[in-house]
Amino acid sequence: MFVKNCWYVAAWDHEVLADTLLARTILDQPVLVYRRADGTAVAIDNRCAHRGAPLSMGRREGDAIRCMYHGLKFGADGRCTEVPGQDNVPARLCVRSYPVAERGRWIWIWMGDPQRADVALIPDAFSLKHPDWRYKPGYLHYDTDYLLICDNLLDFSHLSYVHEKTLGGSPNIAQSRPVVTPLPRGLNVTRDVRGTVPAPYHARLGGFQGKVDRRFNYDFLLPGVLLMHAHVKPADTPDEDMTGALQFHSCQALTPETAHSTHYFFMQAHRFRLDDATITESIYQSLCAAFEEDRQIIMAQSRMLDATPGGQMHPIAADLALARFRRLVQEFSEAEREDSMPLPAAIHRPVHAPIA
Amino acid sequence: MFVKNCWYVAAWDHEVLADTLLARTILDQPVLVYRRADGTAVAIDNRCAHRGAPLSMGRREGDAIRCMYHGLKFGADGRCTEVPGQDNVPARLCVRSYPVAERGRWIWIWMGDPQRADVALIPDAFSLKHPDWRYKPGYLHYDTDYLLICDNLLDFSHLSYVHEKTLGGSPNIAQSRPVVTPLPRGLNVTRDVRGTVPAPYHARLGGFQGKVDRRFNYDFLLPGVLLMHAHVKPADTPDEDMTGALQFHSCQALTPETAHSTHYFFMQAHRFRLDDATITESIYQSLCAAFEEDRQIIMAQSRMLDATPGGQMHPIAADLALARFRRLVQEFSEAEREDSMPLPAAIHRPVHAPIA
Amino acid sequence: MFVKNCWYVAAWDHEVLADTLLARTILDQPVLVYRRADGTAVAIDNRCAHRGAPLSMGRREGDAIRCMYHGLKFGADGRCTEVPGQDNVPARLCVRSYPVAERGRWIWIWMGDPQRADVALIPDAFSLKHPDWRYKPGYLHYDTDYLLICDNLLDFSHLSYVHEKTLGGSPNIAQSRPVVTPLPRGLNVTRDVRGTVPAPYHARLGGFQGKVDRRFNYDFLLPGVLLMHAHVKPADTPDEDMTGALQFHSCQALTPETAHSTHYFFMQAHRFRLDDATITESIYQSLCAAFEEDRQIIMAQSRMLDATPGGQMHPIAADLALARFRRLVQEFSEAEREDSMPLPAAIHRPVHAPIA
Repeated sequence: MFVKNCWYVAAWDHEVLADTLLARTILDQPVLVYRRADGTAVAIDNRCAHRGAPLSMGRREGDAIRCMYHGLKFGADGRCTEVPGQDNVPARLCVRSYPVAERGRWIWIWMGDPQRADVALIPDAFSLKHPDWRYKPGYLHYDTDYLLICDNLLDFSHLSYVHEKTLGGSPNIAQSRPVVTPLPRGLNVTRDVRGTVPAPYHARLGGFQGKVDRRFNYDFLLPGVLLMHAHVKPADTPDEDMTGALQFHSCQALTPETAHSTHYFFMQAHRFRLDDATITESIYQSLCAAFEEDRQIIMAQSRMLDATPGGQMHPIAADLALARFRRLVQEFSEAEREDSMPLPAAIHRPVHAPIA
Repeated sequence: MFVKNCWYVAAWDHEVLADTLLARTILDQPVLVYRRADGTAVAIDNRCAHRGAPLSMGRREGDAIRCMYHGLKFGADGRCTEVPGQDNVPARLCVRSYPVAERGRWIWIWMGDPQRADVALIPDAFSLKHPDWRYKPGYLHYDTDYLLICDNLLDFSHLSYVHEKTLGGSPNIAQSRPVVTPLPRGLNVTRDVRGTVPAPYHARLGGFQGKVDRRFNYDFLLPGVLLMHAHVKPADTPDEDMTGALQFHSCQALTPETAHSTHYFFMQAHRFRLDDATITESIYQSLCAAFEEDRQIIMAQSRMLDATPGGQMHPIAADLALARFRRLVQEFSEAEREDSMPLPAAIHRPVHAPIA
Repeated sequence: MFVKNCWYVAAWDHEVLADTLLARTILDQPVLVYRRADGTAVAIDNRCAHRGAPLSMGRREGDAIRCMYHGLKFGADGRCTEVPGQDNVPARLCVRSYPVAERGRWIWIWMGDPQRADVALIPDAFSLKHPDWRYKPGYLHYDTDYLLICDNLLDFSHLSYVHEKTLGGSPNIAQSRPVVTPLPRGLNVTRDVRGTVPAPYHARLGGFQGKVDRRFNYDFLLPGVLLMHAHVKPADTPDEDMTGALQFHSCQALTPETAHSTHYFFMQAHRFRLDDATITESIYQSLCAAFEEDRQIIMAQSRMLDATPGGQMHPIAADLALARFRRLVQEFSEAEREDSMPLPAAIHRPVHAPIA
C-alpha cells in the first residue's frame, strides 16, 4: 500500500555524483537517477523500452543515456532519439521520466501523476543545510515493509526497552503519554519526560549531574518523513531556558523500495559544539548503534509476522499515533485509486487541537 | 498434515537451562520454552500479542517475560500483567500457553486442545533416564517434511543400501520381511535377520567372529516417536541367551517445525560396558555418521519430489509399515478436523495379530 | 514453453565418462545420463519409481543402476528387474528411458515422443569433430529462461555495445542490416559488415592493418542451436579470396534446464594455425570473456523483467530474427500440444527467399 502522489527521498546528494548512474527501485519501479551536465538531477525509468535491459548499465552521452544492450539512446526527458539500424524512431519508444527536486542534501522524486507534482509539498527538512546545525548523513536498507519502520518511529515508548542502554535509559519514556495532533498530511507527536535519568548517550555528551528533562517534538508526514526537534536539559530549569541543553534536529525519510523492502535516509543534527567534528561523528555512531537495535527488533517482528500470517495484533494506548498514520496512508492511497484525491495545501502545521 | 492432539518433543532438557529463553517453532507455531524459578518447564506463544515481536528477545522478570519492544509483560500462564503507559490491561492481551511435561530428558509439549492433554499418552522412553543404560543425546534439523523421515524409520530395508558400510553390511536386512502389528496410536515393527554378517559398526564394537543374528523391535507411535529394542549376537545361540549380545535401546522423536522442516531428537542407548565412556561416544559418533547418510538420501529425495510435483510413487511390499503409519496420521488429523476424535487409551502394546 | 520433439544437447562427451552417473535436469525432467559397458550413452529418468530417490546416487551393476535407498534395480531401458524382499516385479515399476545419440562430442537427447525420434533431425555440428578445425569446449549455466539467450544470439547488433571492447569494436555492426531467411526448423541469419575497424579480439589474432570486412552466417535451429561460419579479412579484397582471412565455425546449443534456467554448450573452432595450442586457448578465453559480458547484460535484463511483470517490450527492426524464432517455438510447441505436428524434413538449408 503506497501513496504515489507524494515526494519521496530518492537519494542523498552524494550518492549521485556528476558521472553516477544510480539504479534505485522506488515503489516497485526501477528508476535511474543521474545528473545533467548542468548538475540538475533527473530520474527516468531504468528499464529500456526495447527489451528491458537496465539503462543504469548504459553509457552517458551528453545528457542522454545509451542502452548498452542494443544501443537505443534516451534523453533526460525519457524520449528515444536513436535506434541503431533504423531510420525512424517511433514515439512509443520512450521511458517514463519523473519529477525531481533537490532540497538541502536530499533528492526528492514524485512517483505519482506528474501534473500534481507541487514542490510546495516537499517537507521542510531545513537542518539538512543550515549553518547552525551539523550532522553526518546515514542510510540503511531494510528487508521489510516500510510501515513497520513508521510504526517504530511513531511510538517512542520503545526507547525504554529497545534502546534501554543507548538512547533510552529508563521506563519513564514509555510511561509518559505523548500528545498527538493531526496535520493535513501527517501527525505531530510531542512527548515531555520530566525529571528522568539521562540516557547513557546523553550522559556521555552532556555530562549531566542528576535528573534531566527530555522533549521530543516531531512531525511525521506522508509518505514517511520524520522531522524532529529534541532536547535534553537539567531538570527543574525553566522551559524557555536552553542554557546547558543539548539540542537536536533529526530528519528521517522512509522510501519503500518494494512492498517488502525499504530505503531509510536519516540524520540527527546537533546545535552545540559545532566545530568539534568528533561530536558529530560520535552522535552519528550512537545513532547507527541505536538504529541497529531497531533493526534487530523490527526484523525479528517482520519474520514473526511472515511466519504467522493469521496472527492478530492487539492495540494498546501507545499505538495511537501509528494507528492514525496507517489510516492516513490507507485513506490517501484509496483516494488515489479512486482518482479523486483533493490536493491538500503544503502547510503541515497543526490545524486541530491534540487528539490524545 | 499434522496431528495436534499429541505430545511432541519440544527440547532436550539441556537446551532449556535456568536462564534460557528458547525460541522453537513447532507445527508452524512459534513457541517460547523456558523454566520457572522452581525449574518447571513452561511454553507460551513466542509472538507478542501486541505487535508480534518475539518474546524470546524479551527479558525474564521472575517467572514472567517482558517484551523488549514496547514493554508488555506476560506471565508463564500467558496472561498480560502490564502495559506501559496504560492503567488497565485488557483480558484479550494474552498469549497462548501450552501444556508441558518433562520425562527423562525430554520436554514434551501438547499442541492441540489443552483439555485433552493427558500425560498418560506420553510414550514411555524409559531409557532416557535409567541406570542400566548409557547414551549421548543427539539433535538434527531437517529442511523437509517429517513424514519423509518417518518413512525412512518405518522401512529398515534401507540399512542394506544407505548404511551398507556402517549399520547395514549386507543385503540380508532388505531381503528379510518384518512383522508389522497395529497399536492404538502406532505400529510395532519386528525384524529378525539370522545368520548374517555383522555390520561394520557391530564388528568394531562386539568383535564378532563369524555370522550373527540381529533383531530390531520397535514401536513407532504418533506423532512420530520410535522406541526400539535392538540386539546383535552370535548366530545359532538360543534366542533367550543374551551372553555376548550387544543390546541397544533407541529413542527417536520427530517434531515438525513447519510443513517443510523438522526437529529430530535421537539417542541410542547401550546396555554393555556402561562405565566405558569411549563406547558411549563411539556409538554416538557412529549413529551421527549413519544419520548423515540418511540425511543425504532423504534430502536428495525431498528435492526430487519438489522438482517433480506430478510424479507418482509406486508402492512395494517393503512400504507396508510406512503406508500404515501415513494412513494413521491422516485418520487422526482428519478426525481432529471433524472435532470428533475419540481419545484412545494410553496403552500402546499390540492388540491385534500381526498384519504382515 | 518448450518444444519437446527435438534433439537437445544433454552433455559434452567428456562429462559422461565410463563410470559417471550424470544427473542433469532437461526441460524440467531430472535425467540420469551414463554409458553402457560398451560405451554407448543412455538416459533414463533420474527419479526412482518407488519413492523418488535420485538414481544418480545409485550404484552401477553392469549396465543397470541400483537405487541406493531401498535397493530397486533398473536396466538401461528403464525396466525394473529387482525389488529386494519381494519376488515379483510389477511392470509399472519402470522409469522412462530417452532416445540418445552421440555426434561429434555432443550427446543429444530426445525429450518428446520416442516414436518420433529421428536422428536425421540432429543438426550437423560438423566442426565438433573435423581435422580442419580446432577448439576447446565450453559450458555455462544460466539462471534464466533460454529464450533470452536465443534473443541475444539472434541479434548481433549487441556486438557493438555489449562486446564493444572485445568482439565488437564499432557501431558498424549494429548499423548494418542482416539478411534473415526462413528454414524448415529455424532461420538463417547473414550479416556483412564491410570496411570496418577490426574488433580488439581480431586485431590481436590477425594483426590487421587498416579496415576489414566481417561476415557472420549462421543457422539458428530448433530447439536453440547456432551453427555459424564467420570470418574477418582485409577490406577491399575479393569475396572469394580467403588469403589472410581468419575463419571460424561456432557451434552453440541452449538446453532449457527448467523454465528459469539453461544449459549452454558452446565452442568456437578456428581454421588457422591449427598446431598452435596457444591460439586455441586464446580464442577460448576471449569467447569466455565475451560470454561473460553477455551474461551480465542478460541476467540484468532477466532480473529487470522479473521485477516489472507488467512491463512491455517495444519491437524494433533489429528484432526480426528473434521475433521469428520465438514465433517458431510457439508454433511448434502449440502444435505438439494439439498432437498434430507434422514431422518436418531433416534439411535445414534455405528454402525461401530472404524475408528482410
